[in-house]
Amino acid sequence: MIKLIFLGTSSGIPTKKRNLPSIFVMYKKDRMLFDCGEGTQRQLMIKKLKFVKISKIFITHWHADHFSGLIGLIQSMELEGRKEPLYIFGPVHTKKFTEQFISVGYFARRFDILVKEMKNEDVVDFGNYIIQSFEVKHRIPAIGYIFQEKKRINIDTKKLAKYNINKGPLIGKLKRNGFIEKDNTLIKLEDVSIAKNGRKIVYTGDTKYFPELEKYAEKADIFICDATFDDEYSKKAYIYGHCCASIAAKIAKAVNVKKLYLTHISRRYSEENKTDKIIQNQARQIFKKSYLARDLLEVNVR
Amino acid sequence: MIKLIFLGTSSGIPTKKRNLPSIFVMYKKDRMLFDCGEGTQRQLMIKKLKFVKISKIFITHWHADHFSGLIGLIQSMELEGRKEPLYIFGPVHTKKFTEQFISVGYFARRFDILVKEMKNEDVVDFGNYIIQSFEVKHRIPAIGYIFQEKKRINIDTKKLAKYNINKGPLIGKLKRNGFIEKDNTLIKLEDVSIAKNGRKIVYTGDTKYFPELEKYAEKADIFICDATFDDEYSKKAYIYGHCCASIAAKIAKAVNVKKLYLTHISRRYSEENKTDKIIQNQARQIFKKSYLARDLLEVNVR
Repeated sequence: MIKLIFLGTSSGIPTKKRNLPSIFVMYKKDRMLFDCGEGTQRQLMIKKLKFVKISKIFITHWHADHFSGLIGLIQSMELEGRKEPLYIFGPVHTKKFTEQFISVGYFARRFDILVKEMKNEDVVDFGNYIIQSFEVKHRIPAIGYIFQEKKRINIDTKKLAKYNINKGPLIGKLKRNGFIEKDNTLIKLEDVSIAKNGRKIVYTGDTKYFPELEKYAEKADIFICDATFDDEYSKKAYIYGHCCASIAAKIAKAVNVKKLYLTHISRRYSEENKTDKIIQNQARQIFKKSYLARDLLEVNVR
Repeated sequence: MIKLIFLGTSSGIPTKKRNLPSIFVMYKKDRMLFDCGEGTQRQLMIKKLKFVKISKIFITHWHADHFSGLIGLIQSMELEGRKEPLYIFGPVHTKKFTEQFISVGYFARRFDILVKEMKNEDVVDFGNYIIQSFEVKHRIPAIGYIFQEKKRINIDTKKLAKYNINKGPLIGKLKRNGFIEKDNTLIKLEDVSIAKNGRKIVYTGDTKYFPELEKYAEKADIFICDATFDDEYSKKAYIYGHCCASIAAKIAKAVNVKKLYLTHISRRYSEENKTDKIIQNQARQIFKKSYLARDLLEVNVR
């Protein structure tokens, strides 16, 4: 199971109900953040998410609402006695900006911060999954991220039975080597297993529409799209480098996304009086499985 | 009336109930902050305090918990279209650190940030009140602040009646010039008024005990003191550059403070299960008017 939690779903300025952008993803024991707006560490605490164990942070772009929680989070990691290095990924200048903010004030730090700047379609392999960056179109250099799990090989017990293989060392060998020899037959891993496509999560960060976005979102299990505005402000959204409800939904529909999550909601829409529902409603008219992200909303990707 | 609101009362790491340090003070229309930990802008919003109108921010020292809310607050001021300059006061290196953090990321800013570094016992005169800094003893350069209202001259209507002065232009002249001439008598402002001492608020920021602290806290209406720990940890507190419950209370008692507010509470103490009450209880055994600060607590200084 991949656990995904929206920690902040506002844009620019936080509101009473919405914190600045951040998304927590846990894959097995691997904890990561996508963006880290002010207040992220407190949201992590409220959800008891062991912030000190976060190993990597992916920044989409260097507007303050997307990075202003980094100083506080890193300081708290230090106070918790972290020793393991922290990886920060981001677009061009991430190295320079990181060096700048960690040298503000008196900052004891006994762990390393390792920065990797990601260009268009850069891929980092983390073993069971890869993270791919893709350039988006915002007012400043900005990237989105694809979390792509590799193919999952699940042993099929029915098929095993056909070959008279009981559980145990033989199966271990089969997994390790990809084949075994039994009763003068060569049995290959694919003969007794089902290959499932890995899960895919796509996060746009802040972007206006551009055609390649469809390619990146294709067949995502979870497509998290900038939906700062509703359709009434689609022209304004484009000028400011943002998507709006129906654009997100049209992409989701066109490329067979499983679920669309709408986030980076302008404070023009209020959660308290439910005016933010208009964004979800507009999206659902086009793509049924559209959901408005809310702070602390948990999504389990199976 | 001076309105004082605790926006954050934690130390180092925020908790579910306590945000990082910041205190809002409003004197007439003059809004100011003392420290600005991460999450301050959201606390201001929750209290509907018109954050864009804050004119000055006083930083006690450059540990992240005391300044990590600056980037986000300043960014939001810009998004709100602020034009007026913002003044940031702080100890040595405040200029360098401010320049560093405002150059992280892409930061459109159409208002000026004016920095003044405060040395020991520096005074800035704001007309009706002064702010005085004083060096405290922490692990890094750190200062506390005294908000000192100037003497208040209140016209006494009983005394006015004695001189047969009715309300009106004569009183205006009296206030302007300090005296008037009536029925061949020179009447001075002090003859018909009561001079009241101005109100005094003292905020230590982070500090261990040092004797001069008593001088600075003397006769404060509100003395806001570092009380990171309870007395059991007084030695630890001293080593880490902090005060504890009874030290704060002893100072308050020794120099006739009116009310003591204990803040910068370690997350070792929980508001949820009320273990933080121990700090207030220990202080009250020495000084009755001791109060544990809580997030969003409002204090009206009359």
